[in-house]
Amino acid sequence: MSHNAIDVIRAKRDRNRLTDEQIDWVIDAYTRGVVADEQMSALAMAIFLNGMTAEETARWTAAMVASGEHLDLSAVTRPTVDKHSTGGVGDKITLPLAPLVAACGAAVPQLSGRGLGHTGGTLDKLESIPGWRANLSTEEITAQLNSVGAVICAATEGLAPADRKLYALRDVTGTVEAIPLIASSIMSKKIAEGAQSLVLDVKTGTGAFMKTEAAARDLAKALVAIGKANGLNISALLTDMSIPLGRAVGNAVEVAESIEVLQGNGPADVTELTVALAREMLTLAGIDTDPAPVLASGQAYETWCRMIKAQHGDPDAALPKPNHIHVVEAPATGTLTTLDAYAVGVAAWRLGAGRARKEDPVQHAAGILCHAKPGDHVTKGQPLLELHTNTPEAFTGALAALTGGYQIGDSTPEAKPLILDTLRG
Amino acid sequence: MSHNAIDVIRAKRDRNRLTDEQIDWVIDAYTRGVVADEQMSALAMAIFLNGMTAEETARWTAAMVASGEHLDLSAVTRPTVDKHSTGGVGDKITLPLAPLVAACGAAVPQLSGRGLGHTGGTLDKLESIPGWRANLSTEEITAQLNSVGAVICAATEGLAPADRKLYALRDVTGTVEAIPLIASSIMSKKIAEGAQSLVLDVKTGTGAFMKTEAAARDLAKALVAIGKANGLNISALLTDMSIPLGRAVGNAVEVAESIEVLQGNGPADVTELTVALAREMLTLAGIDTDPAPVLASGQAYETWCRMIKAQHGDPDAALPKPNHIHVVEAPATGTLTTLDAYAVGVAAWRLGAGRARKEDPVQHAAGILCHAKPGDHVTKGQPLLELHTNTPEAFTGALAALTGGYQIGDSTPEAKPLILDTLRG
Repeated sequence: MSHNAIDVIRAKRDRNRLTDEQIDWVIDAYTRGVVADEQMSALAMAIFLNGMTAEETARWTAAMVASGEHLDLSAVTRPTVDKHSTGGVGDKITLPLAPLVAACGAAVPQLSGRGLGHTGGTLDKLESIPGWRANLSTEEITAQLNSVGAVICAATEGLAPADRKLYALRDVTGTVEAIPLIASSIMSKKIAEGAQSLVLDVKTGTGAFMKTEAAARDLAKALVAIGKANGLNISALLTDMSIPLGRAVGNAVEVAESIEVLQGNGPADVTELTVALAREMLTLAGIDTDPAPVLASGQAYETWCRMIKAQHGDPDAALPKPNHIHVVEAPATGTLTTLDAYAVGVAAWRLGAGRARKEDPVQHAAGILCHAKPGDHVTKGQPLLELHTNTPEAFTGALAALTGGYQIGDSTPEAKPLILDTLRG
Repeated sequence: MSHNAIDVIRAKRDRNRLTDEQIDWVIDAYTRGVVADEQMSALAMAIFLNGMTAEETARWTAAMVASGEHLDLSAVTRPTVDKHSTGGVGDKITLPLAPLVAACGAAVPQLSGRGLGHTGGTLDKLESIPGWRANLSTEEITAQLNSVGAVICAATEGLAPADRKLYALRDVTGTVEAIPLIASSIMSKKIAEGAQSLVLDVKTGTGAFMKTEAAARDLAKALVAIGKANGLNISALLTDMSIPLGRAVGNAVEVAESIEVLQGNGPADVTELTVALAREMLTLAGIDTDPAPVLASGQAYETWCRMIKAQHGDPDAALPKPNHIHVVEAPATGTLTTLDAYAVGVAAWRLGAGRARKEDPVQHAAGILCHAKPGDHVTKGQPLLELHTNTPEAFTGALAALTGGYQIGDSTPEAKPLILDTLRG
């Protein structure tokens, strides 16, 4: 069998297209341990350097889906629609979005992950709500989708095990940043999660995984192509992540801001993106409802409360408060010209909002409040950033991360649109 | 530490030059198991596809030498000079060459390997001599170099362990055929073996690892550059391997032919290449002696007998004879126009002269005698090839390998030179 692995590696090494049979075999054999880690890492590097066609990438994804369970949502009566973000700083959109789309009549199964690195994890944020439970069985997911219409919970272990194994391997072998591998990793999990429709939020800018718009666009195209080839209704929004989304970055602070959005008084950018993604999701799901008035009516907030309660959380409980706060004051009077998403993301991570290793805990109370956003006028000495943590020794590292991350000047920065483009399948 | 491995992989992945420090670290860490197999295979694929400069390859080689012992030949009083062939069919040149060069006044430490695949191994051939011992200690090697002047023995396990580990990894990860990796693998062992001078016999043609002259020339240049950078006197002969060397292919039959060369009645091609390589080795060693009259005088044969006896072999003992012989007769009268080295090599291998897996034994009596060589006139029904084996069920496979491997026609084939070029450092 190892003979076959070498043939597959050589084929990609020599810039040939892998056949469907080669792809199916190598993914299955790798999942079963017949293809060794050192063979798969050589293949991953060959793919990294020589690429895969759209057809190869779609098949690679399908093979990873086939390596494990497929979440069975056939008992869900509403149209199912999912959202995936490639990750950003202050990206709490899933929290108001899932109940909003559910309030408009769709079923939203949001199987999510925990954060690693400078972007936060949806489950980490929700776990700051007292009592809230991330782990649900397939039966619980189905029942909640029928009763509430929205679930945000942990992805089960059985989905796309090939992807889990391959992702861990890529992480230690310098083969993460290749679009066919990134795209197939994202899509294998989303396809296994079983929703009929999927809207992607592909972010670009300093705080995103894809730093340039061109790279983000390439990734978005690859994701949409894989979805189409695998029978999904799919589209992608290309959105800016050069500045943090909203004013809150962390865990409990992002939950609080999400509730503000659901109550009609959230930051404009978070509200705008929530409504835009909801609109796209409803279009794909074939539901002709405008989400903006549903958000304004309070129905989405009501669905939020029911969703949190269904998972044993108390939507009215006080959220965790930090033991230590450090305020960064504006060093001058003028206009805030930049507030770098990556700098703020790393600072929040260092304050304890994120984790350096998978097994680390996070601090629910840790994070950053941005009291000004680019374009705002600030007065010397006013609070600019509010750093929250329970471990005050973390302030030094967080402040270091913020060095050069904000600037005050005379000119008003050019207003960037938040939503750069929409790519439809 | 795995952080460093990823940095090194990424550097080569992104087409950067690896620093000396990166190369030294990664080879040492891989030898110690700190860099994992899956990391090294990703790096090997990145090197395969993005290459290494001559400087990187020389450093990579030096790091592999530094991973283990260096054979200490300081107690050897004569100038030391070594030969390495990239491997060919019927390539028994080491056997007459080592005693010839020793008879001219140099010390020749020929640390050799066993055969794998269609080219034979020097140790496998010599082990067909009753009593002969391949394993010597460093003290025994030194003593024999001072007394006899020539040693052909097994390479000790402690030389270039990084290369042994990396070679086994490349073998299963589709990363064998890259010139920087091939060249550094060959040279790390040769440099660790400690001779002051080295002549390479880089073969090209169907029976060689390098099928084209251009690829063989590239490899020869890479080998010479590594040798120079590591302080060796080095040169390379580029030689033809499209037809078998001599008339004997196998183990005992090649020993018998080597003795014919040493006694002055060997095939012209084997004698020509032996003398040419001896001349080049003596030049590098600074010894102003013409090897041709030394060969003719019988002194080289005398040294052969002393070398075999020093390693407990009986140079006068009868060599193993096969239990079964199959004669392939000429199917027509005419001129033998082709005799393909690869076909003959594979046939001999299948008869039992070589091994498919490292742990397999070889048959000392197995092999092939070529009763005609390209350009010879043959008569229908005359013996063309004589197949030797102790396992007659092997004849079918051997004959299948020979299908199309020889042709009889009207025209005389263009005589190819055996020695195509000499590259000096």
